Amino acid sequence: MKHIYTDLAIESKEIYQEENKTEIQGVSVDVVEEKNHSVTTVKVLNDKGSSIIGRPIGTYITIEVPKLNNANEDLKDEVSIEFSKVLLSLLKDLKKEKVLIIGLGNWNISSDALGPKVIDRVLVTRHFFINYNKESDESMANVAAMSPGVLGITGIETFDIVKGIVDKVQPDLLIAIDALSSRKMERVSTTIQITDVGITPGSGVGNHRVGLNKETLGVPVISLGIPTVVNAATMVNDTMDLIIGSLKNEAEIGKEFYSLLDELSEQDKYSLIEEVLNPYMGNVIVTPKDINVLIDDLSIIIANGLNIALHPGIGIADVNRYIR
Amino acid sequence: MKHIYTDLAIESKEIYQEENKTEIQGVSVDVVEEKNHSVTTVKVLNDKGSSIIGRPIGTYITIEVPKLNNANEDLKDEVSIEFSKVLLSLLKDLKKEKVLIIGLGNWNISSDALGPKVIDRVLVTRHFFINYNKESDESMANVAAMSPGVLGITGIETFDIVKGIVDKVQPDLLIAIDALSSRKMERVSTTIQITDVGITPGSGVGNHRVGLNKETLGVPVISLGIPTVVNAATMVNDTMDLIIGSLKNEAEIGKEFYSLLDELSEQDKYSLIEEVLNPYMGNVIVTPKDINVLIDDLSIIIANGLNIALHPGIGIADVNRYIR
Amino acid sequence: MKHIYTDLAIESKEIYQEENKTEIQGVSVDVVEEKNHSVTTVKVLNDKGSSIIGRPIGTYITIEVPKLNNANEDLKDEVSIEFSKVLLSLLKDLKKEKVLIIGLGNWNISSDALGPKVIDRVLVTRHFFINYNKESDESMANVAAMSPGVLGITGIETFDIVKGIVDKVQPDLLIAIDALSSRKMERVSTTIQITDVGITPGSGVGNHRVGLNKETLGVPVISLGIPTVVNAATMVNDTMDLIIGSLKNEAEIGKEFYSLLDELSEQDKYSLIEEVLNPYMGNVIVTPKDINVLIDDLSIIIANGLNIALHPGIGIADVNRYIR
Amino acid sequence: MKHIYTDLAIESKEIYQEENKTEIQGVSVDVVEEKNHSVTTVKVLNDKGSSIIGRPIGTYITIEVPKLNNANEDLKDEVSIEFSKVLLSLLKDLKKEKVLIIGLGNWNISSDALGPKVIDRVLVTRHFFINYNKESDESMANVAAMSPGVLGITGIETFDIVKGIVDKVQPDLLIAIDALSSRKMERVSTTIQITDVGITPGSGVGNHRVGLNKETLGVPVISLGIPTVVNAATMVNDTMDLIIGSLKNEAEIGKEFYSLLDELSEQDKYSLIEEVLNPYMGNVIVTPKDINVLIDDLSIIIANGLNIALHPGIGIADVNRYIR
Repeated sequence: MKHIYTDLAIESKEIYQEENKTEIQGVSVDVVEEKNHSVTTVKVLNDKGSSIIGRPIGTYITIEVPKLNNANEDLKDEVSIEFSKVLLSLLKDLKKEKVLIIGLGNWNISSDALGPKVIDRVLVTRHFFINYNKESDESMANVAAMSPGVLGITGIETFDIVKGIVDKVQPDLLIAIDALSSRKMERVSTTIQITDVGITPGSGVGNHRVGLNKETLGVPVISLGIPTVVNAATMVNDTMDLIIGSLKNEAEIGKEFYSLLDELSEQDKYSLIEEVLNPYMGNVIVTPKDINVLIDDLSIIIANGLNIALHPGIGIADVNRYIR
Repeated sequence: MKHIYTDLAIESKEIYQEENKTEIQGVSVDVVEEKNHSVTTVKVLNDKGSSIIGRPIGTYITIEVPKLNNANEDLKDEVSIEFSKVLLSLLKDLKKEKVLIIGLGNWNISSDALGPKVIDRVLVTRHFFINYNKESDESMANVAAMSPGVLGITGIETFDIVKGIVDKVQPDLLIAIDALSSRKMERVSTTIQITDVGITPGSGVGNHRVGLNKETLGVPVISLGIPTVVNAATMVNDTMDLIIGSLKNEAEIGKEFYSLLDELSEQDKYSLIEEVLNPYMGNVIVTPKDINVLIDDLSIIIANGLNIALHPGIGIADVNRYIR
Repeated sequence: MKHIYTDLAIESKEIYQEENKTEIQGVSVDVVEEKNHSVTTVKVLNDKGSSIIGRPIGTYITIEVPKLNNANEDLKDEVSIEFSKVLLSLLKDLKKEKVLIIGLGNWNISSDALGPKVIDRVLVTRHFFINYNKESDESMANVAAMSPGVLGITGIETFDIVKGIVDKVQPDLLIAIDALSSRKMERVSTTIQITDVGITPGSGVGNHRVGLNKETLGVPVISLGIPTVVNAATMVNDTMDLIIGSLKNEAEIGKEFYSLLDELSEQDKYSLIEEVLNPYMGNVIVTPKDINVLIDDLSIIIANGLNIALHPGIGIADVNRYIR
Repeated sequence: MKHIYTDLAIESKEIYQEENKTEIQGVSVDVVEEKNHSVTTVKVLNDKGSSIIGRPIGTYITIEVPKLNNANEDLKDEVSIEFSKVLLSLLKDLKKEKVLIIGLGNWNISSDALGPKVIDRVLVTRHFFINYNKESDESMANVAAMSPGVLGITGIETFDIVKGIVDKVQPDLLIAIDALSSRKMERVSTTIQITDVGITPGSGVGNHRVGLNKETLGVPVISLGIPTVVNAATMVNDTMDLIIGSLKNEAEIGKEFYSLLDELSEQDKYSLIEEVLNPYMGNVIVTPKDINVLIDDLSIIIANGLNIALHPGIGIADVNRYIR
């Protein structure tokens, strides 16, 4: 399988199937369509599937809401509730009385601030449990929340900060939130991915970091993310494919050129584009121009969904009150 | 001349010369190279030049500082001083005792907030003149400053707000600041354009607005801008050109394809890309991911330069004190 | 009447009555108590009342919501709706198809940013009317909105900016929003005053500015405000009164001292405190420490209330969608 | 000694001496006056001094700069340099190759955000040492930096977060920064206290927390703070003292009242005021109204001073480049 980068399992699946026109062995896919949104569950079942799709064994659920960029309050609430159900489905066999929520990403970069903004808005309760010297409560979970920043801000690996806190707080469960990249602009700020395999901070941009997962932290890690940017090389690649595709049908010479490019593996073409784009790359992103406003909205939807899922005594009408 | 959009006169000139391999009639170009920066003066001398280059008669000066994205304080001060000199050269025949500075753009969008951020940092003095009932002062100009927002925020045309204020304040001169778009990523946040022909807010994104200039406002308008984004279609177009160019030298078939594409006018190719990119376009920008941080830095450089130029009694060592 | 400063007509009335133990001639007072809030309508009926209470002839309505600092969403919506009703009662004989909303105050000072924050959140529609070339619409008013800043930021008198915009936009009605000061901490961020007499920006801090009202602007001006600070001299004065009051009952000598202080007019005592406090004064405020968070909440409540009142086609469930 | 609360050792000393008119046993005081600032070193030498002054044994150095609220760049640089010298004098016998800087306080509350704002601006270098696999460097220290938030934001005790990070990073030295309260408005935002005894987060507002110090963390802790608020009860108390003092000289009866109040211990009077002020207290602060702007300035001064002290290879002209 080629290695065009994407943070979304659903896109890894799509890439494979575009190339191979077959089902993926060791991977199951289930899609539920609703009026305003769809839910796709990709399960990587075994090592074979894992090696084909390039992702750890586990469950990857994607909620797609095409109109989320322009949603009214009803649709936002619908998404918060759907998200809370999906989250609870992944948590159903896990202990979840003490939860630590971690907002990954760099708060100084608009498109990377999703995690920290959710942390600003999530309902934190652990200090009530400390103050009232209580172990648990039926109506609410014991929730702590923190944004560790990024290595360039703190000089400390995200993993080290999170591990230090996990050791002190000893949660049953860690939930990590991060901004992702997508291959397709239409998925940006309209798609939520939730997975039970943990997350490697900054992995989307080619850095090698220690992952946050059960093996490294000793507690189950649910991660959720929303694409906020498209990779620039991906955008050029996809646009060229469309253009050459249209030429192919029009001119003999286009057809020949197309077959020439076709002989290049996808990977070679992508590498060629990356090389050409090199002066653009690294720090360049392709993003909606009002991404900071979109992320404000999305962080409220996610925070509401977390509050609904974790605090069963608090309904949708009430969780909004905890949101600033 | 083809109509690939750019806010920079220096790029209009480059596009013309790439296509026509000749000097532009009615347009003079002068380049001064310094160690850390270059200054290019494009003068549109007559109607002929204006119609070829698609810009009003007037002077367009571009300061390019390739290392500005990663500048130390000395380089920043150098740029502030160079900018103040260029500005004063454009002002030398103009009355400039009472100046109104206008920061164009949408403060809610990171890449569009340059103007409002400069306004936050520029030294405003008009209220001192009012309080001390003074007409003028040798050491400082009488400066008012304002960010009018954008139509989508206020419901009011920028021109109407600015005209209303000009009528009350009656400045000798208006200086307008705006974020621009460039065709080349390497110009983003490294290039300052200063011109004496005024500016049309939002013109870069295809809207038709009333311009801010001497005809419409009754006072001379100097405008200055810094590119903060690259047009997505431009980026794809330029990348394709580079890729096809590299193929041209390598394969017979590439050469043929190249000549096919070459037969398409540049304009047709660009339109094709725009069409394909359509779902991406409109709200999508290509920008450095830390654009909000870069714009903070640039707004200090511009504000310092304005303070140096307008307040001769205040040196570089002191203007910094007015900066937050 | 003594001149302890307050922005609230309800407090002017209280001060008069504390001193004089009588009704105020030429001023009517009406109080409606509800479960969670009360509404007090003070009408200054004639010149006699105006001179006694030190305020222009007109209607001053105060909504007091003691628990507003710690409100859930239901209470916030209740206040938005109550506020919209009170606003509409003041507007009932006024043309209100084209409305200009002005957010007074300095956005750089947490306690003074109420007006600008409401402007950030109010539903602006005037550009739709321009784009669709429409004069009016049954479901929504034609609303423009703007924050003019303060003299220290722009170098331009607030009145001049507002007058310039009124001349261009020609609204039927202007609504001005401002942060106020109160004599009592318990009113801070729990009280909304709405009045039809206009407003003088910065009047609360002793500056003399041109007012925003029908005489100066040519259109009716509704102003609304929420106290966000207590005057430091007021706080000391009130605390001393309470302490000396408690001493009065306890010790002979306290009684004598009290009568000595009592012989000082209230005004003299207040001046004495102001003099002593002088090094503290000017820039010092007494405010809740989380005033920036409180003002975020209050700006949503006010923006929602304005949207409900001005856009009859949009209900409470929907206006929230326009809020960021 | 009475227990009027203050975060400043210099004020504890003043209170003692106002009451007792004697030197404090076991405490040495040294004052150096400069043109624009003074440096007062209070050393608590033994248990006797510690019990009198109510503070741990150690050194407390206070830099007072009366004009700091309105400083130009030269004065700001002077303060950064003086602060760096004082800091180095406290560090002279300590290992300081690996430093962890902690910004205490709540970033959502303007007057409490000093620590987090310094962290935003301090030069972090630890990741360079990691990337280049280097142990030490002559021109710069290995610096990590972090703002742990407060219990109400994270649900986690500040101590637990800091301890977790100290265990991972294993610094030679921890420097903690916090906003303080003062008894006197003139010290607010004009005074820096640096001490080698560590700090107890939130101690100023009556909470009991685990301190950050060598005993609890295993590394030396230098703490530095700047007063940003005055306690409301303190302000009333001090104002009353001044008023009654002025009455004392004027009227027989004032004199008698004064002696009555004088018979009340200072502590009783303070308690009385606190009781009367109770509805005001808790969340109410007395602060300069532009405290957020002042704290921006102060955080740059402190960050520059830290950079100068910790990175000997970087001079004053250059550290500014690291400041945003």
